[in-house]
Amino acid sequence: MTNAELELTTSAATPSASTTMKALVYHGPGKCAWEDKPRPAIQDPGDAIVRITTSTICGTDLHILKGDLPAVTDGRILGHEGIGVVEHVGTGVSEFHVGDKVIISCVTACLKCDFCKRGMYSHCRHGGWILGCTIDGTQAECVRIPQADGSLHHFPADGDEEALVMLCDILPTGYECGVLNGQVKPGDAVAIVGAGPVGLAVLLTAQFYSPAAIFMIDLDDKRLAVAKKFGATTLINSTDGHAAHHLMELTEGAGVDVAIEAVGVPATFDICQAVVAAGGRIANVGVHGKPVELHMEKLWDRNISLTTRLVDTVTTPMLLKVVRSGKLQPSKLVTHRFAMNDIMKAYDTFGNAAKEGALKVILANGGLR
Amino acid sequence: MTNAELELTTSAATPSASTTMKALVYHGPGKCAWEDKPRPAIQDPGDAIVRITTSTICGTDLHILKGDLPAVTDGRILGHEGIGVVEHVGTGVSEFHVGDKVIISCVTACLKCDFCKRGMYSHCRHGGWILGCTIDGTQAECVRIPQADGSLHHFPADGDEEALVMLCDILPTGYECGVLNGQVKPGDAVAIVGAGPVGLAVLLTAQFYSPAAIFMIDLDDKRLAVAKKFGATTLINSTDGHAAHHLMELTEGAGVDVAIEAVGVPATFDICQAVVAAGGRIANVGVHGKPVELHMEKLWDRNISLTTRLVDTVTTPMLLKVVRSGKLQPSKLVTHRFAMNDIMKAYDTFGNAAKEGALKVILANGGLR
Amino acid sequence: MTNAELELTTSAATPSASTTMKALVYHGPGKCAWEDKPRPAIQDPGDAIVRITTSTICGTDLHILKGDLPAVTDGRILGHEGIGVVEHVGTGVSEFHVGDKVIISCVTACLKCDFCKRGMYSHCRHGGWILGCTIDGTQAECVRIPQADGSLHHFPADGDEEALVMLCDILPTGYECGVLNGQVKPGDAVAIVGAGPVGLAVLLTAQFYSPAAIFMIDLDDKRLAVAKKFGATTLINSTDGHAAHHLMELTEGAGVDVAIEAVGVPATFDICQAVVAAGGRIANVGVHGKPVELHMEKLWDRNISLTTRLVDTVTTPMLLKVVRSGKLQPSKLVTHRFAMNDIMKAYDTFGNAAKEGALKVILANGGLR
Amino acid sequence: MTNAELELTTSAATPSASTTMKALVYHGPGKCAWEDKPRPAIQDPGDAIVRITTSTICGTDLHILKGDLPAVTDGRILGHEGIGVVEHVGTGVSEFHVGDKVIISCVTACLKCDFCKRGMYSHCRHGGWILGCTIDGTQAECVRIPQADGSLHHFPADGDEEALVMLCDILPTGYECGVLNGQVKPGDAVAIVGAGPVGLAVLLTAQFYSPAAIFMIDLDDKRLAVAKKFGATTLINSTDGHAAHHLMELTEGAGVDVAIEAVGVPATFDICQAVVAAGGRIANVGVHGKPVELHMEKLWDRNISLTTRLVDTVTTPMLLKVVRSGKLQPSKLVTHRFAMNDIMKAYDTFGNAAKEGALKVILANGGLR
Repeated sequence: MTNAELELTTSAATPSASTTMKALVYHGPGKCAWEDKPRPAIQDPGDAIVRITTSTICGTDLHILKGDLPAVTDGRILGHEGIGVVEHVGTGVSEFHVGDKVIISCVTACLKCDFCKRGMYSHCRHGGWILGCTIDGTQAECVRIPQADGSLHHFPADGDEEALVMLCDILPTGYECGVLNGQVKPGDAVAIVGAGPVGLAVLLTAQFYSPAAIFMIDLDDKRLAVAKKFGATTLINSTDGHAAHHLMELTEGAGVDVAIEAVGVPATFDICQAVVAAGGRIANVGVHGKPVELHMEKLWDRNISLTTRLVDTVTTPMLLKVVRSGKLQPSKLVTHRFAMNDIMKAYDTFGNAAKEGALKVILANGGLR
Repeated sequence: MTNAELELTTSAATPSASTTMKALVYHGPGKCAWEDKPRPAIQDPGDAIVRITTSTICGTDLHILKGDLPAVTDGRILGHEGIGVVEHVGTGVSEFHVGDKVIISCVTACLKCDFCKRGMYSHCRHGGWILGCTIDGTQAECVRIPQADGSLHHFPADGDEEALVMLCDILPTGYECGVLNGQVKPGDAVAIVGAGPVGLAVLLTAQFYSPAAIFMIDLDDKRLAVAKKFGATTLINSTDGHAAHHLMELTEGAGVDVAIEAVGVPATFDICQAVVAAGGRIANVGVHGKPVELHMEKLWDRNISLTTRLVDTVTTPMLLKVVRSGKLQPSKLVTHRFAMNDIMKAYDTFGNAAKEGALKVILANGGLR
Repeated sequence: MTNAELELTTSAATPSASTTMKALVYHGPGKCAWEDKPRPAIQDPGDAIVRITTSTICGTDLHILKGDLPAVTDGRILGHEGIGVVEHVGTGVSEFHVGDKVIISCVTACLKCDFCKRGMYSHCRHGGWILGCTIDGTQAECVRIPQADGSLHHFPADGDEEALVMLCDILPTGYECGVLNGQVKPGDAVAIVGAGPVGLAVLLTAQFYSPAAIFMIDLDDKRLAVAKKFGATTLINSTDGHAAHHLMELTEGAGVDVAIEAVGVPATFDICQAVVAAGGRIANVGVHGKPVELHMEKLWDRNISLTTRLVDTVTTPMLLKVVRSGKLQPSKLVTHRFAMNDIMKAYDTFGNAAKEGALKVILANGGLR
Repeated sequence: MTNAELELTTSAATPSASTTMKALVYHGPGKCAWEDKPRPAIQDPGDAIVRITTSTICGTDLHILKGDLPAVTDGRILGHEGIGVVEHVGTGVSEFHVGDKVIISCVTACLKCDFCKRGMYSHCRHGGWILGCTIDGTQAECVRIPQADGSLHHFPADGDEEALVMLCDILPTGYECGVLNGQVKPGDAVAIVGAGPVGLAVLLTAQFYSPAAIFMIDLDDKRLAVAKKFGATTLINSTDGHAAHHLMELTEGAGVDVAIEAVGVPATFDICQAVVAAGGRIANVGVHGKPVELHMEKLWDRNISLTTRLVDTVTTPMLLKVVRSGKLQPSKLVTHRFAMNDIMKAYDTFGNAAKEGALKVILANGGLR
């Protein structure tokens, strides 16, 4: 730590004398390694250094590894989800102290810019999704969290790390982009297209609002079976290419009040626009790489809305309350556990999710508990 | 009038002994005539017969004449806008009486079905837009209005027919589909693509909410000049194909909070998706005949919403209050006046709107006042 | 049936040749009798005659019997809740036919007036709460339902009469006045003051939105025990007069996001204003006979809202969907069953609710099933 | 400035070598003086020191002087409104720099606590209304602004100080507590009770939404005349104690959609509850010192809402946009101007507002321009 950094650090706990740590480092398409990196240090007054205790892998991490996100460059530590303990804080951090256990939001929020003030942390002018993307991330022993007051949440005394690491990204993503934007209401008929981890997060949080019917659509019967256990009322395997047709038959031509896209390709988007009822909502959650054809010649007079959203993580405090009340059990999403040192194996498992039956994999620093 | 019809009629005023009337009748693509038709009679308990005093022509009528709407068949009387006087009412009509002067909504609403109860009259299971489409319309001496209690509004004692005929369709269309769905708010930057009558109706009603800037985009400088008079703060002629680029420069890259599409073709829709700011709304008003390419690869993380809507006319009572308060002067939209007998000339003028500088043309039964 | 009435009736089913029926008739404070009355007949085109199969008694009926509602006069048939079968319909009724099984809303709605169009059926200019109040009600063999298209709902093929008779009044009342107006949200802390039938209806429907905590406050431990079974998370017996103090201690001074008043006296209202958190909502459900003292000197800067509402029954279609999905079991509220002929005994039981452990009592025409 | 303070200060501009300044200091009920005080210095990383160029006096300042607010103690510098130039910033301040011209919000917001994240800055756990109350205020040469990033706004290049000082308190107060909470909509009938500066701020900002009618109620014909100029459509002098009766007659018994209380005494609150229509809103703006009697026996079934709010100043950025667009001219509220040195005279004038015809008085440091 340099002198300049020292001046920015209000407290000098001594959790680790080492100046290096292990981290998962990206080295271009298809290449990454669990290797030594310098331990991060405070750079700005709003920074905190967090020692990671639990992390996980996101579908986006797989996209990065494939080279789909050119913003991620050689040398970057991956990961944007994690639970940990604060080791250092900058002078501008007021809500967190050394020793605090914290939940790290995948989105960094300064709270001060116009977008943050509107609750759009995803578009924060000093943050947004940068962790494990344009700055080093959480798949490591330690991570620097900029804008810590806006980007961390206090971990509750009675919390379960495996459950609450789902609040870093996947649950607020499903809830904000899918359920809130889709305005799910009691009695609604809801279709969720995609039963992967994010689609299942939509499924779990949609039930906050007591919809009458939830149609789950996917190519994989195993994932559909999980969806059934998680509360889906009707399953539709879309392998035959006629999912929309089946849903319309099942609803006697009515379609659904809310269609939630949780895949990110034109075919799944098309199902949504084919099944949304007049007056309904299409809420997009999936990450798209290509344009879609929007059938305005059919939709212009249908009184529908279509929304897009990058998760803002503004609902994390609320989700935390619901988890603590027992009305949401995010640990249901966990299928595999690895010591952080075995992260390469964890990626193998997660990368073959269908075959392995993997949803979310837990990475535990200090080994498995 | 048959005996059966007589039984359905509570009151027998004698405004006209004649059993025929003049009406504008569609005879297939490109053909129509001002000719004799039987006077309409009560068919259902909810019907009213209205003698038209003022009507107007809508862009949709031109589409019908071109043959774009196959639902409209040979022999149909055109027109879905009008002011008139009630001549007969069925036994089920309770809110209107013979002699009442009324505003006819372009949308017919039973008020009883699930869509009507949700305020989506446009999708009424017994109505919707049927006038001058699947049943005979208002460009005639008389018209039968089904579901009269849901489809008529009392004309105020101090009202101006030319102003209030704009409440039949164009003003609620601009307001509901554009302004309400676009959620225009004080201080917003708004772009309206299309300065035709509907775009101008959007412009007039957007100002109910005190936006800070209104960019008006059109190919026609004459229409843009009208928009300036009506309150647009910045004009963009889109002839060079770079309207979106110009708007982005004018807003220093920020774009607009609300982009309202009031034309109905892919090129104008594209301007909207190019200029909407993160967190903004695209509200579609235009009638589309083709799909559009929606750039989900750019929009998926922009937190935008896109809405479509066929006018519900649920805001007509409110618009009526605003007109009466003097805060909205719909008669601004009137550029030409014709006696109803001269309706063929009126169509000529309206059909050459650009050359004629026409916005809305008034059709007055009984001649011009 | 007179000739005039005959003309208004479209169909002449012959379910009963009798011209009289049994009904519970009010004869001034403290007096009522199960006695003969003329069978009702169609008076207006919008009327339906419904033969009652199941009814129930409301707390308001007890108030009427005590003479608290001077609008109810000698000779009035009581009751505003019921399930039945349509026997006759007027010519203006389009949504219901002879033989249809129906749920009767306690509120009569013309659907055509300005209040109905705004969804405020409770203030319908031609209806509102009139059944068993200013017109004859449902505690009888038959009832005339004016504005039938707005006041009846189709009974589903697989429905349970005992469950669905709760949709006539108590469930929409708890849901609309308490839960919707209180804007209950996932993670919220909610206090419900009063564990009578209406308070319990609030409790059941509040859970549509997954609040984290529901504090139930009442004087009666038996009712609180029921509340516990129905999902309350914390019970507070208010006998000691310190319910607000206890709640504030339990919430570490935070109070609740939503405080719902379901009794209607100043003392229970006071609990609500004492426990509502800054930014919270007080939703009044109870019927008040006296003013309350509102502590504006404490509340003016607390950013709270306080709402009042007479049930509009606009959410009945939605509640029906939720019941059918199995997410709400209204039959939980039923504690006693009587043949309609034994209605006087039913009133005795319901009038001694605390002693009898009574919540809702079922009245079955044709005897118990 | 101590060493500790120095360390917290990132930049050392030298606008003033002096260590003292002039300020208006409160010395208990009825006593205050324009006297020497130490210049403020940075105490926390989030602080900024602002040299005041323009300030004004609020009705609340008069209450403080009378001794109505015991939280304000001897020695306190008064004032919570001001425009100025940043002289120093702490290390945690990122959005403002030395030399920036700023608008000071009357409410201090940390942006990080749960209330700030919900947009309830008024209840900020580290701020709220503290300026000129529990910490020294703006009626001075300089002021320390804690939580500067959440409590200051950039003054626009083309801004007018006299106009924009109205954005410190009075305009967001009228807009947020009155207009937003009252949900003023196009076509609404609005009553504003109280035509003092805050009532007039409500009047100016209510017009953002094009209400059809605005009834202004006050005891003072001079203030009513100002209201007329500012856009009120109907004036009611309430001296005879029958203002509610007059309003009900003028509206033919309908009452108003929104009743806004801008005084803070039971009599004016009573007017609001007497004139609000079924389905309407009462929005309280006034500061109340006593409970009011709320007529729940009349209101329980009227479907009304009543709101309270301390200004959050969350709408200041939006108000700034509207002012810059020319759609709001806050300088209309300015009636008198004083050099800051003459603040005692300014208080005399403002304290005799009725006689002096005073609305807002401008205090200019460095003398009048």
